[in-house]
Amino acid sequence: MPTPFEYAQNNANSFTQQLLDLLRMPSISTDPECQGAVQEAANWIADNMRRTGLNNVAIMPTGTYTPQKPSHPVVYGEWLGAGENAQTVLIYGHYDVQPAVKEDGWDNEPFEPTERNGKIIARGSSDDKGQMFIHIKAVESMLKTEGKLPVNVKLIIEGEEEIGSPNLVKFIQDHRDMLKADVCIISDTGMDKEDQPSIIYALRGLVGMEIHVVGPSKDLHSGSYGGAVHNPIQALTEIIAQLHDENGTITVPTFYDDVVKLGDTERDELKKTNPDDAYWKSITGVKQVWGEQQFTIRERIGARPTLELNGIGGGFQGEGIKTVLPMKAMAKITCRLVAHQDPIKIFEAIRDYVAKIAPPTVTVEVKMLPGNGNAALVELDNPYMKAAIRAYEKGWGAKPVFMREGGSIPIVADFQRELNAPVVLMGYGLNTDGAHGPNESFTVSMFHRGIQTAIQFLYEVGG
Amino acid sequence: MPTPFEYAQNNANSFTQQLLDLLRMPSISTDPECQGAVQEAANWIADNMRRTGLNNVAIMPTGTYTPQKPSHPVVYGEWLGAGENAQTVLIYGHYDVQPAVKEDGWDNEPFEPTERNGKIIARGSSDDKGQMFIHIKAVESMLKTEGKLPVNVKLIIEGEEEIGSPNLVKFIQDHRDMLKADVCIISDTGMDKEDQPSIIYALRGLVGMEIHVVGPSKDLHSGSYGGAVHNPIQALTEIIAQLHDENGTITVPTFYDDVVKLGDTERDELKKTNPDDAYWKSITGVKQVWGEQQFTIRERIGARPTLELNGIGGGFQGEGIKTVLPMKAMAKITCRLVAHQDPIKIFEAIRDYVAKIAPPTVTVEVKMLPGNGNAALVELDNPYMKAAIRAYEKGWGAKPVFMREGGSIPIVADFQRELNAPVVLMGYGLNTDGAHGPNESFTVSMFHRGIQTAIQFLYEVGG
Repeated sequence: MPTPFEYAQNNANSFTQQLLDLLRMPSISTDPECQGAVQEAANWIADNMRRTGLNNVAIMPTGTYTPQKPSHPVVYGEWLGAGENAQTVLIYGHYDVQPAVKEDGWDNEPFEPTERNGKIIARGSSDDKGQMFIHIKAVESMLKTEGKLPVNVKLIIEGEEEIGSPNLVKFIQDHRDMLKADVCIISDTGMDKEDQPSIIYALRGLVGMEIHVVGPSKDLHSGSYGGAVHNPIQALTEIIAQLHDENGTITVPTFYDDVVKLGDTERDELKKTNPDDAYWKSITGVKQVWGEQQFTIRERIGARPTLELNGIGGGFQGEGIKTVLPMKAMAKITCRLVAHQDPIKIFEAIRDYVAKIAPPTVTVEVKMLPGNGNAALVELDNPYMKAAIRAYEKGWGAKPVFMREGGSIPIVADFQRELNAPVVLMGYGLNTDGAHGPNESFTVSMFHRGIQTAIQFLYEVGG
Repeated sequence: MPTPFEYAQNNANSFTQQLLDLLRMPSISTDPECQGAVQEAANWIADNMRRTGLNNVAIMPTGTYTPQKPSHPVVYGEWLGAGENAQTVLIYGHYDVQPAVKEDGWDNEPFEPTERNGKIIARGSSDDKGQMFIHIKAVESMLKTEGKLPVNVKLIIEGEEEIGSPNLVKFIQDHRDMLKADVCIISDTGMDKEDQPSIIYALRGLVGMEIHVVGPSKDLHSGSYGGAVHNPIQALTEIIAQLHDENGTITVPTFYDDVVKLGDTERDELKKTNPDDAYWKSITGVKQVWGEQQFTIRERIGARPTLELNGIGGGFQGEGIKTVLPMKAMAKITCRLVAHQDPIKIFEAIRDYVAKIAPPTVTVEVKMLPGNGNAALVELDNPYMKAAIRAYEKGWGAKPVFMREGGSIPIVADFQRELNAPVVLMGYGLNTDGAHGPNESFTVSMFHRGIQTAIQFLYEVGG
């Protein structure tokens, strides 16, 4: 009888093929046209969990679906055979993905996964189907060899993470007993280098909004009216250009009021993983690093909030000339927040500031988008964090470093609060995976090392 | 036997129906998918001219069509029966139109003309199919009743006006003998009120360009990178916001160097037709008038150049949140120019200024778009201008005023120069027609009064 580690190695190819099947489903949670694919992915995961040996597998609705307010089910499964006195590990992941079309710059269709240079290229490969699947395959490797686990496990795999998990808090509250656990594990983050695992102890929060500027009541001829009508695109750019100063610092009053200041000790720890300018330029392709000069790159992305323009649109964007003075223009913004910024307060501060600087020649509206979440800071000193360190040392072969991450998993704060359990973030992605962008990838060898580490983690927690 | 004026009245309904047929053809010159419709419109006009009694009607290619560099034929027709000693009138119009789709805010399909409240709603109804067709029907009314005209006429109806007439100058040069005339008439402008005809003596020129900003080499996750990468949308807005000052004056160095200053006499004449703020707000729908405070509205649109944002695009413009830090952003600009600004010099001034203010964190490129043209100032004191005044008095029933127009008909300057003939702009549109925008319209009664005036004009020129 092989060990769980050997079982995972022997079945590595099959595990990869299963992941490719899941990646073929365009489970884009924000897109009403993908509702069927989201459902299909949920069914697929439930089936896979059942075959793994998990019990009480269920597809649990989180609300009533409407295109305006989409809701997608949670897939739940558990193995509680370790008994009431054993530790219980809750594993969270998500099966929904960001939008993607080949025209965004993909080399292959985003939902036709392709293996190249040891990587799987597909939307969701790293964020988060691949990372989430590591845990299902770790549990399978233990159950199919030893017939049991050293701990109880509960898996909660949701389908709304990329739209901000609008129903998850209520779901947790409604199923507090079912989800009760000693520790919660999330694998939805990345590391800088394959041979240097890292444990994220801080995540940024998120709040999204749109700025709408309307000038004339319809598109106008730029010749007949241009010069005596404030162009709404111009007005929008004039507003946006006032939201940062030359140092990249956000100019919105009260914006930084609640930001937790960095101490010297923490700044020293963060320096260890600070990417240097050359590396930063190489992974992003930028000509020059940008941002607040008084902070390092790691601090800018991990400990400082942002006001990011995710999109802008207005007027004619086709080929050639169209001499139009457009009626309106729009920009989409998300702010990444740090502890202890409140998403609603930040939205209101921006809304009020934009109203203050908006010129009287146009009508300006700032609307909050659904999907905000709080930033999280995870305590470093608990036995599960130590179990994770040992798991990485044995399963991965290297001691992890502690890092702040720029991304948002708002439910980290939610799990901590609602379940009163520590959250350990064991990310198996690479920061170069290109999550949310074209050619998102997941390194095949990290998938398999992740399974080894996830098995080891359950042993470590089980004692 | 009816007079030409009576013939036009008797056939008013038939003339309108013919115009509707022409308006059904989506002859969008900039759109490669509409090449067939452009051709169809050219054929239709040639047929109509032949039935009108014009001779030597021909569809004359202006170049070899490619989607990258579209070319569409000129429709030419003439009646030279007045003899060598008679005056020759060259009439210019265009049968191509601006892009239009219902989603832009139309109440009906833009190429399914609809009559409402005495107006024909369709793309091209006013600009320029309706106005151009006035002349064909005026010639028909005279030939079908009197069998002759008091002058020789030549009609040149082109299909490339909305893409900047890229081939017209060469066409004129290649057919200088064929086009030789004593005066050139263009009906492609508007008046403020139906009962107050106006003669445009100044038109603005045009130059178009795109600003492209590229930051990272691909779309990035706004969490993992945001704060240490200059967002290209933000960089673009910061550039655009620097192109005007708070007064609406363009900040590009040398931009105004060649602008002809307005004299006091001309400013007094222009005051007569200056729209007041309340009227301006009512026709545009803006909350407040915008622009250079030291100039009146008429001066801002007629005698001052502009730098107009026709479009902007970048990142995610769909529904909901996409937490992307986009790779690139783009803006489309056209400048309306006044005499004696040179389109190429203006492009270069903007390109150089943008390069100067562009931040070092992004790559910025400014590209000129095809379709530039010079501004025009037409001399007021010539016999054809006087003939036009008398034609309006008799055919329209009101004395015209002299106005500067904000739009561009670059070929006015070209005709003046290449044929050494004065150009008289007899516009039959209304400034509220909404040319280039949704629900473009043409007032049916102005169509028919235009035909009466166009007949009278030929009598006035013929003596």
